[in-house]
Amino acid sequence: MKRASHRILIIGGVAAGPAAAAKAKRLNPNLDITLFEQGEFISYGTCSMPYYVGDVIKNHEDIITFSPEKFEKEKGCVVKTKHRVVEIKPHRRRIVVHNLHDDKFEECEYDQLLIAAGASARVPNKEWLKASNVFTIKHLSDSIAVKNYIAQKNPRKVTIIGGGYIGMEMAEAFSERHLDVTVIHKAGHPMNTLESETQAIVLDEIKRHGVQFIGSSEIQDMAIDGGAAKSVKTQHQSIDADLIVLALGFEPNTELAKNIKIRCGRFGGILTDQFLRTNIEHIYAAGACTEIKNIVSNKPIYLPLGNIANKMGWIAGENIAGGHAEFKGVVRTTAVKVFDLEVASVGLSSVEAEASGFKVVTESIRAYSHSRAYPGSKPVFVKLIIDGLSRRLIGANLVGEKGAALRADVLSVAIQNKMTIRQIAEMDLMYTPPLAPVWDPILVAANEAVKKIR
Amino acid sequence: MKRASHRILIIGGVAAGPAAAAKAKRLNPNLDITLFEQGEFISYGTCSMPYYVGDVIKNHEDIITFSPEKFEKEKGCVVKTKHRVVEIKPHRRRIVVHNLHDDKFEECEYDQLLIAAGASARVPNKEWLKASNVFTIKHLSDSIAVKNYIAQKNPRKVTIIGGGYIGMEMAEAFSERHLDVTVIHKAGHPMNTLESETQAIVLDEIKRHGVQFIGSSEIQDMAIDGGAAKSVKTQHQSIDADLIVLALGFEPNTELAKNIKIRCGRFGGILTDQFLRTNIEHIYAAGACTEIKNIVSNKPIYLPLGNIANKMGWIAGENIAGGHAEFKGVVRTTAVKVFDLEVASVGLSSVEAEASGFKVVTESIRAYSHSRAYPGSKPVFVKLIIDGLSRRLIGANLVGEKGAALRADVLSVAIQNKMTIRQIAEMDLMYTPPLAPVWDPILVAANEAVKKIR
Repeated sequence: MKRASHRILIIGGVAAGPAAAAKAKRLNPNLDITLFEQGEFISYGTCSMPYYVGDVIKNHEDIITFSPEKFEKEKGCVVKTKHRVVEIKPHRRRIVVHNLHDDKFEECEYDQLLIAAGASARVPNKEWLKASNVFTIKHLSDSIAVKNYIAQKNPRKVTIIGGGYIGMEMAEAFSERHLDVTVIHKAGHPMNTLESETQAIVLDEIKRHGVQFIGSSEIQDMAIDGGAAKSVKTQHQSIDADLIVLALGFEPNTELAKNIKIRCGRFGGILTDQFLRTNIEHIYAAGACTEIKNIVSNKPIYLPLGNIANKMGWIAGENIAGGHAEFKGVVRTTAVKVFDLEVASVGLSSVEAEASGFKVVTESIRAYSHSRAYPGSKPVFVKLIIDGLSRRLIGANLVGEKGAALRADVLSVAIQNKMTIRQIAEMDLMYTPPLAPVWDPILVAANEAVKKIR
Repeated sequence: MKRASHRILIIGGVAAGPAAAAKAKRLNPNLDITLFEQGEFISYGTCSMPYYVGDVIKNHEDIITFSPEKFEKEKGCVVKTKHRVVEIKPHRRRIVVHNLHDDKFEECEYDQLLIAAGASARVPNKEWLKASNVFTIKHLSDSIAVKNYIAQKNPRKVTIIGGGYIGMEMAEAFSERHLDVTVIHKAGHPMNTLESETQAIVLDEIKRHGVQFIGSSEIQDMAIDGGAAKSVKTQHQSIDADLIVLALGFEPNTELAKNIKIRCGRFGGILTDQFLRTNIEHIYAAGACTEIKNIVSNKPIYLPLGNIANKMGWIAGENIAGGHAEFKGVVRTTAVKVFDLEVASVGLSSVEAEASGFKVVTESIRAYSHSRAYPGSKPVFVKLIIDGLSRRLIGANLVGEKGAALRADVLSVAIQNKMTIRQIAEMDLMYTPPLAPVWDPILVAANEAVKKIR
């Protein structure tokens, strides 16, 4: 490892930032690392916030891995919360920091800078957020605010704008709190990136749990009165609401980067090389402010997930410390719990695969999670998406009450290794009646697919 | 596909036999297929029998996939139960069958013959089985006999001879029936093929559930009085027992094969090529009467498991129907439920790996099955076995209350694809707090291992 520069500044304290700081410091204890975070919390599980709001997780402290103090003490890095970085001066290797505690500005020098500025919730109209009962779910402080609002105001009707991953998780969270939940979604079915069959299963599941789903509808406006939103207006109707959550997805925080001409991609995220270097010398980027490579399509995608941010943080940290680690990209393995279901997807969707020029062949089956004779087995829906030319698996959806998500991991590894559908049909998967059937759902699906493309 | 011969005879009706028959007939409906089974049942889940004895599965019919009648009707093959094949005459392409119904013998001609004769329980002294309370667990009729014995005789103390997979499953089964269970095992810990750490976890688990484990002890004799065994004698002591199960493993049924010089291996199983052909023309073999290739060590092993028998049956069936399917071997992915634990292993053990000449590096960790903040997460023990030269994963053990077994499947695919430990550390596994942590236990283990062999 080459000798690393000494002054490391990191912008962003949620996932990639602390991961990078800890990794770099462990590899090179001589580094002088400072982490800037505009909020008051660092190092927390963004993805756990719906469960905190749903009160399945009781205290917000439970989803914090490190307090600023603990991080400083255990990792040996300086942590500055309530410090907002407002400018990067790459030629002078400085950043300008706005200390929100005392409203002062200061400049700090760096040898290496990591932008791990994360993402922001997409909001059609910032004015709406001024209403006391309108929230996004991005920062821990957002989640605390929602939870406090429920405790204090006892809302009855909740409207969630957006039926994606967070929308589904929040629908479950509010249902756990026995609130009336309505989801308004642009498309006819929830979860745009999933296969239509999967979307239909998810829609059934949320309806079965009493969630009202209003599809093919977009929010146009809110009726705000006395500082609180009273209803949501779509192109078709007006829906009364005591509490509104905007769950319209995320966009990368790249203002700082764009101001200094750091190259960004078509999804607006910072582009890096495999070492997570930007096009500006001495500046790295990692996490939800970046675009990453989908190794199935070889195209950049935007995928703001906590595990990927952490992984990128480690890699950036290793390189900042003088290493040469590579981030090779993702298969895109995602899972979400929707009430009683595990909903998982891996690789490309059939729509994406078609758009990428693949000759798509699909196969869908339902098979049991373990031997049917043994109590508690549940059907698992598996849809395989195959490139008809190379016969390789390029994507899959898996849904079921038991063992759908971990089976997506099995297929993620298969896709990463460019396995053909016949090779997948031949995989040696475990069998024991209480845990898996003689023919695992993956093998059932693959065997059916082999017949189709033999 | 070349035109197939017409008269297909299959010896053995439990797993590989019916699988082959059904597959061959589907591919070529003109085939004239007859299945011979010496017992009265065909097509049942041998691996489900402990749960049937434990009364978790109530009726023996529940673990039968096809009755002989149903199989004949739905699959279009002739099924002859209570027909024992006693001789193969390869030069005349005939077999001699003993009809146990009327004690007559007949000869049947074949164009292709499949030996799927399965395995037998290993029994040190056949005389012991004459005692009314001594059983093996191999055939469905054995399991029915044990269950009937419990119902009729109300035994209190059960002694299981052998602490392998079946021994552990039977210990759980009898505990479910609230019997006093003692396991006598040759080695100091149960489950010889697992890592010592895993064995210790399993031993704790069975003890925690009240099973008495007597290690380093071998059965020498039984005290039999009035047609029933009263106690088991080891080299150290005598253990009273009302019911005794011999669970000392299985051996391939190869008498028919050996009589006609079909080549067998060092474990006594029939050797085949990748198309499951024996060295005698027109004779195939599949399932628990054969040895198979471990694709990690490239050595033959004996692994009498239901899923492998079924897979081999399909391949033999395809080839009998004129196809050219290959059985490439196994990674050896196995899992067993031991009370509250999923106990899984994949690939080589560290002992086997050393014996095969690998420079073995291991890494063991405990990490959580999903985000700790979300209720119900459980530790998963992962031990990775790595070839220090190629840095490839060659084996693993995984144990835990949740998600250990399916994670073995993930590693099975990794091993099959000859992934290095660094590639495994970079795998894209799903994350969502209720289902998996930011760093999956597999990734935690792989990252630790990378540090060790970097």
